Amino acid sequence: MGRVTERRRIVRIRDGRADTRADTLVAEEPLEIRLNGKPLAITMRTPGDDFALAAGFLVSEGVIGAAEEVAGIAYCAGATADGGNTYNVVDVRLAPGVEVPDITLERNVYTTSSCGLCGKASLDAVRTTTRWPVADEPPLRLAPELLSALPDRLRAAQQVFDRTGGLHAAALFDEHGELLDVREDVGRHNAVDKVVGRALRSGRLPLSRGVLLVSGRASFELVQKCAMAGVPVLAAVSAPSSLAVDLAAETGITLVGFLRGPNMNIYANPDRVTLPSP
Amino acid sequence: MGRVTERRRIVRIRDGRADTRADTLVAEEPLEIRLNGKPLAITMRTPGDDFALAAGFLVSEGVIGAAEEVAGIAYCAGATADGGNTYNVVDVRLAPGVEVPDITLERNVYTTSSCGLCGKASLDAVRTTTRWPVADEPPLRLAPELLSALPDRLRAAQQVFDRTGGLHAAALFDEHGELLDVREDVGRHNAVDKVVGRALRSGRLPLSRGVLLVSGRASFELVQKCAMAGVPVLAAVSAPSSLAVDLAAETGITLVGFLRGPNMNIYANPDRVTLPSP
Repeated sequence: MGRVTERRRIVRIRDGRADTRADTLVAEEPLEIRLNGKPLAITMRTPGDDFALAAGFLVSEGVIGAAEEVAGIAYCAGATADGGNTYNVVDVRLAPGVEVPDITLERNVYTTSSCGLCGKASLDAVRTTTRWPVADEPPLRLAPELLSALPDRLRAAQQVFDRTGGLHAAALFDEHGELLDVREDVGRHNAVDKVVGRALRSGRLPLSRGVLLVSGRASFELVQKCAMAGVPVLAAVSAPSSLAVDLAAETGITLVGFLRGPNMNIYANPDRVTLPSP
Repeated sequence: MGRVTERRRIVRIRDGRADTRADTLVAEEPLEIRLNGKPLAITMRTPGDDFALAAGFLVSEGVIGAAEEVAGIAYCAGATADGGNTYNVVDVRLAPGVEVPDITLERNVYTTSSCGLCGKASLDAVRTTTRWPVADEPPLRLAPELLSALPDRLRAAQQVFDRTGGLHAAALFDEHGELLDVREDVGRHNAVDKVVGRALRSGRLPLSRGVLLVSGRASFELVQKCAMAGVPVLAAVSAPSSLAVDLAAETGITLVGFLRGPNMNIYANPDRVTLPSP
């Protein structure tokens, strides 16, 4: 459990020469998330912060929105035939009175029954289910220079990336650019769930003054996670998708992409960025 | 349907100046895959090649392995309340006699019931379910120079990347480095499913003389897709994960990572690469 990296023997070809050497890889293992003892999902993740990952996943799914809605989180002992513990199965028990969602395959495709599966339906589904609509009062006002400084702070805080090149990262900053948390994972969505889950477990949801930065690209799913946790600003080092932009616009999230040095693109809700005067 | 890119108005900050302009984004839309009319999965994908994506997904899941096992694939008309077609719901009808898998949530977590969820169980599950075990006879022998030439050929063939920066790509080459197919998608796994699905639909599975190249990283899931389609060589531009390496080793796949210029790392089954003499 908790192995963030693993070592393997590899053949390395450099400048026309081959040698065999040990190499450091990012660890990937399956994690099964159970809800009140019933299997809910499996995600391939980098071990570590598994309880936070499970909690953050449930926030993203709209099951929970506050720490007190969780009665407990535990690894499932006895998950193997010999009664051992793989530390790859986590059970989240909801507090009494918290509604247990109808966990069926159909639940995941509920949008189809009413209006047809489409981008608009996906946007509506997030907007209507979020527990923490974006509500930053007073509205955040961020200088471009503040945003531009964040990627370097993320990289400085990353523990593993330089050794493996295989990790995604998600970092939470406050409105002054101070780093509050950073998590790494082989899956970008897991890194975000870990950040959100840690915030939930320490009673810090909604993240209504937060700025989330992700390595790489911004998909619909990442904007959804911000929408479910009340994060008003999502910044990505690379490109967003069309539906990510549309969801950010619909839920009031400021979406920044291609954040590189002093340059950036603002895809939705630019009001929170104090634009340089022409 | 079939929109690979979409246009949005953005605010662009460059060199301390802000302007508003139209920008091209990679399109992302949900696709629901139904099997004999029953919902099986939803994936966020870039529209286009949806039938191939559905077919390739079913290959990866071990449901089908040959074109004749599919009776037909169609968009579901009447998916919306007004009877319209969103082109986001695809139904795959299996040919008579093809076993329909038990589509329940529990099916996806079957490894837990027997031996505990762990990396080893995940490897075993793929190895024992693949329809097309890797079997290149005679074994492929690839010069490093041949592998090094592939990323440039992929980039030359990519239609959309340069405009959006938001697309992953998967390309299939033959053992001589000739490009056979290339697909792009907002999700790397979808790009691979599209390539595999197109191969299935044209009767070319197993891809026992094929070399698959993916942009970015190589996860367990991508190696799994190669294992299910009989692809003997997977090359990635960036890093693999530990479980990707282990699955490649277990299923006989040659896994190449950090394929950049003349340099590369070989993480599993290096015998297919003709190593330079020391």
